[in-house]
Amino acid sequence: MSVQILDHQLEDYFNTAVELAKKAGQKIKEAFYKEKNVNTKQSAADLVTETDQAVEKMVQEIISQKYPTHKFIGEETVAVDGSSCTLTDDPTWIVDPIDGTTNFVHSIPEVSFSCGITVNKEVVIGVVYVPILDQMYTAKKGQGSFFNGQKLSVSSVTELKQAALIMEGGSSRDPDILKAKLDNLRNVLTASHGIRAYGSAAINLCKIASGICEGYVEYGIHCWDIAAGLLILQEAGGVVKDTTGEEVDIMRRRITGACSVNIVNQLVPLLTHLDMGRD
Amino acid sequence: MSVQILDHQLEDYFNTAVELAKKAGQKIKEAFYKEKNVNTKQSAADLVTETDQAVEKMVQEIISQKYPTHKFIGEETVAVDGSSCTLTDDPTWIVDPIDGTTNFVHSIPEVSFSCGITVNKEVVIGVVYVPILDQMYTAKKGQGSFFNGQKLSVSSVTELKQAALIMEGGSSRDPDILKAKLDNLRNVLTASHGIRAYGSAAINLCKIASGICEGYVEYGIHCWDIAAGLLILQEAGGVVKDTTGEEVDIMRRRITGACSVNIVNQLVPLLTHLDMGRD
Repeated sequence: MSVQILDHQLEDYFNTAVELAKKAGQKIKEAFYKEKNVNTKQSAADLVTETDQAVEKMVQEIISQKYPTHKFIGEETVAVDGSSCTLTDDPTWIVDPIDGTTNFVHSIPEVSFSCGITVNKEVVIGVVYVPILDQMYTAKKGQGSFFNGQKLSVSSVTELKQAALIMEGGSSRDPDILKAKLDNLRNVLTASHGIRAYGSAAINLCKIASGICEGYVEYGIHCWDIAAGLLILQEAGGVVKDTTGEEVDIMRRRITGACSVNIVNQLVPLLTHLDMGRD
Repeated sequence: MSVQILDHQLEDYFNTAVELAKKAGQKIKEAFYKEKNVNTKQSAADLVTETDQAVEKMVQEIISQKYPTHKFIGEETVAVDGSSCTLTDDPTWIVDPIDGTTNFVHSIPEVSFSCGITVNKEVVIGVVYVPILDQMYTAKKGQGSFFNGQKLSVSSVTELKQAALIMEGGSSRDPDILKAKLDNLRNVLTASHGIRAYGSAAINLCKIASGICEGYVEYGIHCWDIAAGLLILQEAGGVVKDTTGEEVDIMRRRITGACSVNIVNQLVPLLTHLDMGRD
């Protein structure tokens, strides 16, 4: 049986998510210009800092106090207890305390706090905040998406050969995964105006939502990287799909987002599809 | 016989370059949010707009009136008359009206006006201005480099495995060039924290100068893309070399820049060296 949420409840969740983003942003900003203690997770390029962990702890505590029946999926919580995360119909806060940890470590400003809220397994609220640049992206299901209060809309480009794309190297150093990613990169580069890489999936989706670049493909992301950004892109008029062009599944660790379904349809045949497992 | 330039003359050139950057920036900003008329040059991804041409024309006219004996090398002038550009000992203004034209076309804010001044074939002044973000990078030989007036200094990372790099797909779609670039990308990605791509050589050099990312490699750039940025990076304490690790030659269409010579020395053996001809 699906969960019923009233409008005023959703509004309350949204306001809480924005407040959390500002609080998290303050902590990230304080740590950004200081020396960082860096540890690694799955590979030598999969980084985590004390700030990732401190921000997630703070956010989780606030959510569990305010909404004790809600579920929580956070990048660092999953990393610590090794559990895979299960998405249920219950209201679920999917949080990446710092999306773009490598950027954070290198003082590259594209570092974001990402918070998506699902109800009945569907993202209904998305908040991405880039504290160093004071950029707040927000969306509520069916109500558009906004950048610092201004309504967002995607690029009107429909042909891949006139598109700029975003693709990332990612943190895996597995040679087979890298080979497929580089083949994809060559194919997309050859067919388009060019490729950019900013190092944060959440920000990448927000850039497409803002009409900056037309499409984005990534294998290896997690639900916390994309939950918020995918709603922000959809509500700006964009399209989010699985990399095969099928319906997106936020637990499937792969995504393509674009300004239109035409761009997705032209991207899909250029890709070698990697099975990255599930969150 | 080498040319002698007095300090007050250099100061005058510097002030003119900064004024030109602001005037160019104003024109770029006015055009940035409007519909653009796009043409192509060497490939379907080598773009030029009316704004590139209008900005270069304005800049060239001001320089030729103010300094009639000085030489001028500008991206769009070279593209139109097909001449290769010859660097002499005379004071020479090397100008890219819009570095990052693809970004400009796609409303990606990393778009810069770049102006380097050489005397005796050596860059003595560098100015890179990013008008959409109001970011002014400047350098005078031997006097440090600055971002909006604040002194710049490079990252202190010395190990490639702890470095973030910048590499670009570029505009060539020649399969052999792309193969070498993607091999380089794989090798550098495997050996480092990751790779970013922002789409402007001038800005890339300024980012390394700012301590954001540790190194940058590119094949296929031109002297107008790098003349200003390489001085800004050197004056921030960084190192600029040919991709083989030899002395940089700004007409040789390839470059590596890094926060330290250690990073360059670790990058060089990972690269397949492309001969891109000369400007």
